[in-house]
Amino acid sequence: MSMNRQIVLNSRPVGAPTPADFRLIESAIPTPAAGEILLRTTYLSLDPYMRGRMSDAPSYAPPVALNDVMVGGTIARVAASNNPQFKVGDLVLSYSGWQDYAISNGEGVNILPADMAQPSMALGVLGMPGFTAYMGLLDIGQPKAGDTVVVAAASGAVGAIVGQIAKLKGCRVIGIAGGKDKCDYVTNELGFDLCIDRKDPDFAAQLAAACPTGIDVYFESVGGAVFDAVLPLLNVGARIPVCGLIAHYNDQQLPAGPDRLGLLMGTLLKKRIKMQGFIIFDDYGHRYGEFFSAMSQWLSEGKIKFKEDLVQGLENAPEAFMGLLEGKNFGKLIVRVEQ
Amino acid sequence: MSMNRQIVLNSRPVGAPTPADFRLIESAIPTPAAGEILLRTTYLSLDPYMRGRMSDAPSYAPPVALNDVMVGGTIARVAASNNPQFKVGDLVLSYSGWQDYAISNGEGVNILPADMAQPSMALGVLGMPGFTAYMGLLDIGQPKAGDTVVVAAASGAVGAIVGQIAKLKGCRVIGIAGGKDKCDYVTNELGFDLCIDRKDPDFAAQLAAACPTGIDVYFESVGGAVFDAVLPLLNVGARIPVCGLIAHYNDQQLPAGPDRLGLLMGTLLKKRIKMQGFIIFDDYGHRYGEFFSAMSQWLSEGKIKFKEDLVQGLENAPEAFMGLLEGKNFGKLIVRVEQ
Repeated sequence: MSMNRQIVLNSRPVGAPTPADFRLIESAIPTPAAGEILLRTTYLSLDPYMRGRMSDAPSYAPPVALNDVMVGGTIARVAASNNPQFKVGDLVLSYSGWQDYAISNGEGVNILPADMAQPSMALGVLGMPGFTAYMGLLDIGQPKAGDTVVVAAASGAVGAIVGQIAKLKGCRVIGIAGGKDKCDYVTNELGFDLCIDRKDPDFAAQLAAACPTGIDVYFESVGGAVFDAVLPLLNVGARIPVCGLIAHYNDQQLPAGPDRLGLLMGTLLKKRIKMQGFIIFDDYGHRYGEFFSAMSQWLSEGKIKFKEDLVQGLENAPEAFMGLLEGKNFGKLIVRVEQ
Repeated sequence: MSMNRQIVLNSRPVGAPTPADFRLIESAIPTPAAGEILLRTTYLSLDPYMRGRMSDAPSYAPPVALNDVMVGGTIARVAASNNPQFKVGDLVLSYSGWQDYAISNGEGVNILPADMAQPSMALGVLGMPGFTAYMGLLDIGQPKAGDTVVVAAASGAVGAIVGQIAKLKGCRVIGIAGGKDKCDYVTNELGFDLCIDRKDPDFAAQLAAACPTGIDVYFESVGGAVFDAVLPLLNVGARIPVCGLIAHYNDQQLPAGPDRLGLLMGTLLKKRIKMQGFIIFDDYGHRYGEFFSAMSQWLSEGKIKFKEDLVQGLENAPEAFMGLLEGKNFGKLIVRVEQ
């Protein structure tokens, strides 16, 4: 391969992204200047937050500019180095985006252990999604043994970890996932007590039946009809960490009324509930070491399982990402860029 | 006086309470049994939460039953005692409700210092409203010097204390109140930096102009149009203690759409905001001593001011309470029951 393939933002999506919103371009592989390194992407992480970066609505991070490379976390190898901190062959966690090669000055690039058995874990269970699950559940959710913890998107990269940690803390854990296969995986493989299929017509009634003593912690990453079913079940003193709202990312306008903003606030008041949004590295970056140690320990003891949904080839990233927003992935979605 | 006057709940209000929802009845002054005391009410506190107790919708406390005495915090004198812990003449903080006399077994009745210069303070700045202001602002709001703190109902029993504590912590404090007199009081007497009149047609624009760097802490007790003006001004990392939503207490149905529930959750997520409802004695009862010490110190140093809106006569409590829900009171609303 002598060219660098890049997937750039071709247009801002109106509603759900379409293939035309992405464009694959090719250019010469760049050459690192003094102090810089050339990174060859091995794995690209695909995550729901990327939908926000495709829009220019105000958010917590600036949008990707039109014709710029789509952003994203990556595992890469150092292919050339003019920076003494990196040597050719180093395996790194970087933020190279949707492209074969990237130039970096080394800032924010972390060298991974050379003997790491499965480097893609640094994009999932040991990376941003796992860290999100860990801090959101433990710091904001404050689960106590015996609590009922409900987890949205329970087979996903974050939810799967949330529920397993909650089980380790002695909670009763109810997952919510889309489809029977995912629900079976959540209960049989991950060990949740129950998992409700959000696609079932009587989903809300099933969730209520699954939570006879109400919900103490609801880990939110979905919103929409899932939250609507959760809202009336929340207990006094409940905690709601909010790390995402994937059901709303393609919204083009507010849904029809009635307006339930006051209803939500009234519920928070009457039931003394804490609802808190967080962006993992912004809020908890200083505690990554604590997370990494705890999670590594659990993994080594076989207490936490994880599943990757591996897609082959950078050119397939747009389709995989569009599927992610529809819940088509099964496990942490990762693109293998270097074959 | 040889009879006990009581104001009972005559009917559950539909929307705003009316005089017909209350009924004044008279009965013989009760006689304390063994272990009991007879309390003569001196002051009755009127507070917005009482509207919730008039409804049988699910809430954090059981409703007042029809024909039962309306609940409420009181200052009382012990008029007769068959309980060795109390002697006739003791001044107490009790929960006697809307009546001249009450029987108690002493549980939850706290003796006040006999030389207390202004016992009604135990219903306001040193009682539930002051405690609500203190814990909500300091524990949930976590104000830092230089923060912009916005306070709803700024001349009220809670808001007035919130803003003064925020000033003591070095914050820039913007009040919101209804009418010029209240706003003048909030800035001239209480020392807030600014106060915006929520009745002004361009209230939202004035608030935005008053918060050029956004809002770091919003102390919520109102909801409705006040929160609508606050929402777009909230900063990344903002904190929102919610102790009340007086604008909604008389709502009979949800307002017309669009549905902004998802908008609120999306704002909490994107801006990493914490919104937390609390009920002061349920959540913080164990920290009352800490509050009492700090507030007593500030009062003795003249650092905290407060204003009482004193209504004469138990028979006037319903009208005063109905006015409270419309913002007609000016300062902590208290009924002087014993003339």
